[in-house]
Amino acid sequence: MNEITNRDKNNFKWVGKNTQRPDGPDKVTGRARYGDDMIVPGMLHGKTLRSPHAHAKIISIDTSEAEALSGVKAVVTYKDIPDHPLLAPPYGPMITDFHDISRNIMARDKVFYDGHPVAAVAATSERIAKAALSLIRVEYEILPHVLDPFEAAGADAPILHDYQYTLGSDPKSSKPSNVFRVASSERGDLSKGFAEAEIIVEREFRSQPVHQGYIEPQALVATAAADGSVDLWTTTQGHFVIRGYCARLLNMDMSSIRVTASEIGGGFGGKNNLYSEPVAIRLSQKTGRPVRFVMTRSEVFRATGPASGTYSHLRIGAKKDGTIVAAEATIYNQAGAFKGSPVGRSVDTFFSAYSIKNAKATAYDVCVNRPKVAAYRAPGAPMAALGAELAINELAAKLAIDPIEIRLKNAVQDHEQSLSGVKFGRIGLNEVLVKAREHPHYSAALAENQGRGFALGYWMHGGGLSSVNANLLDDGTVTIATGNPDIGGSRSSMRVMAAEELGVDISLIKTIIADTASIGYSHLTAGSRTTFATGLAVINSVREIIDKLRQLAATKWDVSVENVAWEAGQAVCHHGDFQALSLKQLASLAPKVGGAIAGHSEINATGAGAAFSAHIVDVEVDKETGFTTPKRYTIIQDAGRAISPDYVEGQMQGAAVQGIGWALNEEYIYDHNGCLQNAGFLDYRMPVASDVPMIDTVIVEVPNPNHPYGVRGVGEPPLVPAPAAVANAVENAIGKRMGVLPLSPPKILQALK
Amino acid sequence: MNEITNRDKNNFKWVGKNTQRPDGPDKVTGRARYGDDMIVPGMLHGKTLRSPHAHAKIISIDTSEAEALSGVKAVVTYKDIPDHPLLAPPYGPMITDFHDISRNIMARDKVFYDGHPVAAVAATSERIAKAALSLIRVEYEILPHVLDPFEAAGADAPILHDYQYTLGSDPKSSKPSNVFRVASSERGDLSKGFAEAEIIVEREFRSQPVHQGYIEPQALVATAAADGSVDLWTTTQGHFVIRGYCARLLNMDMSSIRVTASEIGGGFGGKNNLYSEPVAIRLSQKTGRPVRFVMTRSEVFRATGPASGTYSHLRIGAKKDGTIVAAEATIYNQAGAFKGSPVGRSVDTFFSAYSIKNAKATAYDVCVNRPKVAAYRAPGAPMAALGAELAINELAAKLAIDPIEIRLKNAVQDHEQSLSGVKFGRIGLNEVLVKAREHPHYSAALAENQGRGFALGYWMHGGGLSSVNANLLDDGTVTIATGNPDIGGSRSSMRVMAAEELGVDISLIKTIIADTASIGYSHLTAGSRTTFATGLAVINSVREIIDKLRQLAATKWDVSVENVAWEAGQAVCHHGDFQALSLKQLASLAPKVGGAIAGHSEINATGAGAAFSAHIVDVEVDKETGFTTPKRYTIIQDAGRAISPDYVEGQMQGAAVQGIGWALNEEYIYDHNGCLQNAGFLDYRMPVASDVPMIDTVIVEVPNPNHPYGVRGVGEPPLVPAPAAVANAVENAIGKRMGVLPLSPPKILQALK
Repeated sequence: MNEITNRDKNNFKWVGKNTQRPDGPDKVTGRARYGDDMIVPGMLHGKTLRSPHAHAKIISIDTSEAEALSGVKAVVTYKDIPDHPLLAPPYGPMITDFHDISRNIMARDKVFYDGHPVAAVAATSERIAKAALSLIRVEYEILPHVLDPFEAAGADAPILHDYQYTLGSDPKSSKPSNVFRVASSERGDLSKGFAEAEIIVEREFRSQPVHQGYIEPQALVATAAADGSVDLWTTTQGHFVIRGYCARLLNMDMSSIRVTASEIGGGFGGKNNLYSEPVAIRLSQKTGRPVRFVMTRSEVFRATGPASGTYSHLRIGAKKDGTIVAAEATIYNQAGAFKGSPVGRSVDTFFSAYSIKNAKATAYDVCVNRPKVAAYRAPGAPMAALGAELAINELAAKLAIDPIEIRLKNAVQDHEQSLSGVKFGRIGLNEVLVKAREHPHYSAALAENQGRGFALGYWMHGGGLSSVNANLLDDGTVTIATGNPDIGGSRSSMRVMAAEELGVDISLIKTIIADTASIGYSHLTAGSRTTFATGLAVINSVREIIDKLRQLAATKWDVSVENVAWEAGQAVCHHGDFQALSLKQLASLAPKVGGAIAGHSEINATGAGAAFSAHIVDVEVDKETGFTTPKRYTIIQDAGRAISPDYVEGQMQGAAVQGIGWALNEEYIYDHNGCLQNAGFLDYRMPVASDVPMIDTVIVEVPNPNHPYGVRGVGEPPLVPAPAAVANAVENAIGKRMGVLPLSPPKILQALK
Repeated sequence: MNEITNRDKNNFKWVGKNTQRPDGPDKVTGRARYGDDMIVPGMLHGKTLRSPHAHAKIISIDTSEAEALSGVKAVVTYKDIPDHPLLAPPYGPMITDFHDISRNIMARDKVFYDGHPVAAVAATSERIAKAALSLIRVEYEILPHVLDPFEAAGADAPILHDYQYTLGSDPKSSKPSNVFRVASSERGDLSKGFAEAEIIVEREFRSQPVHQGYIEPQALVATAAADGSVDLWTTTQGHFVIRGYCARLLNMDMSSIRVTASEIGGGFGGKNNLYSEPVAIRLSQKTGRPVRFVMTRSEVFRATGPASGTYSHLRIGAKKDGTIVAAEATIYNQAGAFKGSPVGRSVDTFFSAYSIKNAKATAYDVCVNRPKVAAYRAPGAPMAALGAELAINELAAKLAIDPIEIRLKNAVQDHEQSLSGVKFGRIGLNEVLVKAREHPHYSAALAENQGRGFALGYWMHGGGLSSVNANLLDDGTVTIATGNPDIGGSRSSMRVMAAEELGVDISLIKTIIADTASIGYSHLTAGSRTTFATGLAVINSVREIIDKLRQLAATKWDVSVENVAWEAGQAVCHHGDFQALSLKQLASLAPKVGGAIAGHSEINATGAGAAFSAHIVDVEVDKETGFTTPKRYTIIQDAGRAISPDYVEGQMQGAAVQGIGWALNEEYIYDHNGCLQNAGFLDYRMPVASDVPMIDTVIVEVPNPNHPYGVRGVGEPPLVPAPAAVANAVENAIGKRMGVLPLSPPKILQALK
């Protein structure tokens, strides 16, 4: 597959060109069909009763009055959701324990956060469903709660799960703990390293949980048929994952659940999970009618997963010439109510952009009385990068070395290995840093009260299972079916790669997202894996079509297929006098021979490799109000190859805006009872267009040798350093070290005092 | 593939067993989602203005008042449907001339039948859409019309299309004609044959057009997106055909149209065509909103295709010993308003069950002022069989030979060739006739006023393009996606064949119908092709899965894949001491190796072969009222192999009931203006359960050597002889020759006079 990697990019017809978005106008005019745009005859409306307490024992649930209300067709509680035993060790890197998931979607013996589902009803109208909720009597015994991960890890914290012991500890001699797991990687000799250091920086940081900010709330319709099969329409980043989870949770055959992914109104990792889906299926099974659930915005905030809030502590030691000789980091990631936060990725992020001989990183997975965390672009990474990047900047400042120079000096090189053991191949880190140093932004003058921040982000992309069905139609047009919801332009990038391979106009190719029964397993659209992994499957599929067309031409010409090449959208034979046969000509012949022409690919892709993103950001701080305004923002990032540059640019720009929010504004505000006070976009303040400057982007292309077009992935790297870069700019503007996000006006005023 | 054909059927685990219908309960409880069960936000309601005249010139259409009505979003006429040039010869066996189709879905210069669409509107409610229709002013110049095919073929008949000349005639020296084509096959020496005959029977027959009787009217929703792509939900027997036709008609890329087939409420050939689909697409493109069309029952009768009405004339000559030495038949099939009736199938049907040395069959394709005919189970065959079978029965009676004996004497044998050149392989005709002769019904006593009929039907099944995606899921369950709407139980039969191949329980397998963008081209569910052709693709796909699993086991065991066999749902290796690996065990390993496990097949199947159906029916005629009651009905039919015997039985029973309707009751009644008078099931009288006796069935199994399980196809053969058998029984009861269907009470009273 590598023969194309080294093709001169100037020879590409479609790769690297900006083409019109296939889904753009429909999304802005409201024609696109999102999760709540499915209406099914006879459909019931589902509503969820949620805990008003952060931590409480459920004494009793009485649903009889609700069930008696006219128009209510069914009520479910935990009794309707099968229980699952606690997963025994060993655990994989992602804990997906159905014991926990079953309790998260419907509280069983205890509620663990404000918003935790306790019961759900299906009624003939939303009004009746709401009325029914108010008729469900739940008796609680309120328990003390804990919200902060560092506090929750302490000995005196209220314990959420009395069956949970820290992994590796002996239940006989230990007490139950909110700390489920401590992940750690180490190399070299840390004490020797710090002994060698001529300067040591030591800092601590705190960050708040943050919301992905998708506009579309979770919404779905489940329809259970009498033969036991279920149709599910839902907004998700991975309908195959939803199928598998629902089947496991409800003890159903996977083949009996068919999931169709609606158009998705943003996900960013927040739609990798399931919430109301299994509940809706149970309600549909009980009533024999389709059941629809649409979360309110308040429900989204109270009960779906944000990114982890964290507490972290770092020490970094260096020689006077800037060589980092020792680094140690510890982070407490809050997992929310149930175990499982991205500890591995935190450990991997801290120092992996740097070649440090003696290093250790540790991450604690800690349960707290908040909704179970979810992924959010590069989960676990931005808050690790916050600490490492601010500490390195402080080191550089103290040594009077330029922040980019110190990074170039310590940058990890091709084929080295990360702290957590990830082997790099060819990487573009040096190229990114050099481009950043050369960028006019980096040397531009700053006005009064302005500061400049710099930070570097690393992310190792995912691969995994992807499936594609490509079909050549009689008229020479092509359909490409993937199993990946399009959250970042994959319909466009798949089309571009298919057109490039086939050598035809992109307008002939239509990419769609197939349901779970129509195509092979396709993992989440997440981990920046889709353009790489699903793209590989598209390329394989299209190449199978090309091979079949070459065979068709060879048969027609009575030559050996080896003598037939595919050039610029047509079959050619240079061994004789043959008129080239176009895709369209061959397509019209195809059905007459052996059947429709199709290409298929089911792969488990590996080799996506690492990418690096460098951010330069200028902010201006109003010293009277403490309000920070981002003034200029530049991202330099290695995309491997930008299949659709405008989408790549959009990914980078969107990440910068999210990073600005993380750094300056966003936080979940809980009252002293542990109840969320700002469950809406009016009070949970994300940046909007008027809050941010134009985000400039520089796409560096150091092709990934493991992909025909050199793709690495682009969605996650740009978020990793963004909060750190903004925080660094604020520090630079006010001349104070700022370690507690968000850097909201009160905190800045406090620092300035 | 043949190794299984000869497997003892007693060794089958699922093939030949009756299993629970997957779709049964949902269909009877109203949960299944039919054409009109799709509701899309923002959807408009489409309605069609139809011609009130049988034949008229359109002078003008004024849509301005309708367009001005509040709530009306768009009006279309022929101006919105692209015109297409008349197709030049040579023509295929099926005329699909987009010149004609474009005029049939929307009249251009003339209207050709009562109900012919003239304009269509899309409005915010059905009420407004209806009101808008009444505001469209159409000025017509009424022309003389013709309804009967024999009359329409005459020299003085009103001509529908002044550009149409009989195929083969010279337009310079000929006059335009309603006869488009005369299909004919001949062998031997007809005059010599008749000269040798010792007895000659000569008769003529007439039949009326008949409605397929599907309960669900045509219904659809079309949604055009801003990027030019279209989603279409419609009730159809072939969503790939709908896609291709819409694309051709509207000059769109095929890949830009994605068609999903709804659950289908009956088709029987009547839903092979398209009517409102392209109109709805145009209205959606004009309005930017989804557009829904649901036909009323009256529209279904007035404007969708029934089976051809016919006039036929036959002569059959035989020796005294019953050897048929000459046979000649001519049939006039009415095509409706545009050319194209099943003339080829008529020619093929007349005498193909018999080995007649000198024979000729001719069929005229004649345009009349009626809706364009559509397929109806075994199109073209029942009315040809009516003539041939009644004539042979008359011959038998005159020669005092038993009707079955005369057929056994003349029966076509294995590997002979039909009159129209179709080569038979191994056929089950003798077996069917012998079984019929042995059946107690055939020799049972008759009561007063009762008569017994016998007739034989032949049908050559279709093959063609089918595609299947089979996916093995992690938990060992399987999804089978086909591109064929399930009109006769294909979800069940595909599941049975997949389970048989895999050696697992059918409950693990779920069959679904994929949309046109998710799977390769799949031809209509028609021509009794699906269990054969799509079944072959299922078997291929599942065998690919099995091969992958054998490879997986071989790798795990470190043995050669040739040494791994698949037995009873598990991989086994008899060359060493290996614990068998079950489908479920292997499935859980699969994703960890090379990707999801899938099997795919896109085929152009051939070799479905012929099947024969013999009917024995008893009727009782009330000589006072002329009313005929069927008293007993037995069908003996070669199914090759009955995959799901209860569905096969259902196909046979349903065909008998339809045949009873054709023979006794059904007809379209037009007034002297050519307007339909009985456009509804109250006045168009089809038999209901209380009108018919229990239909007994005998399934003969002479396996088709071209299919692993011996499948031939079952849906069409049982309709072919049904009207003839019933008519023969009436003749036998009243002792009169009855050649004009339906044999309604007035005709019988007339005959008895």
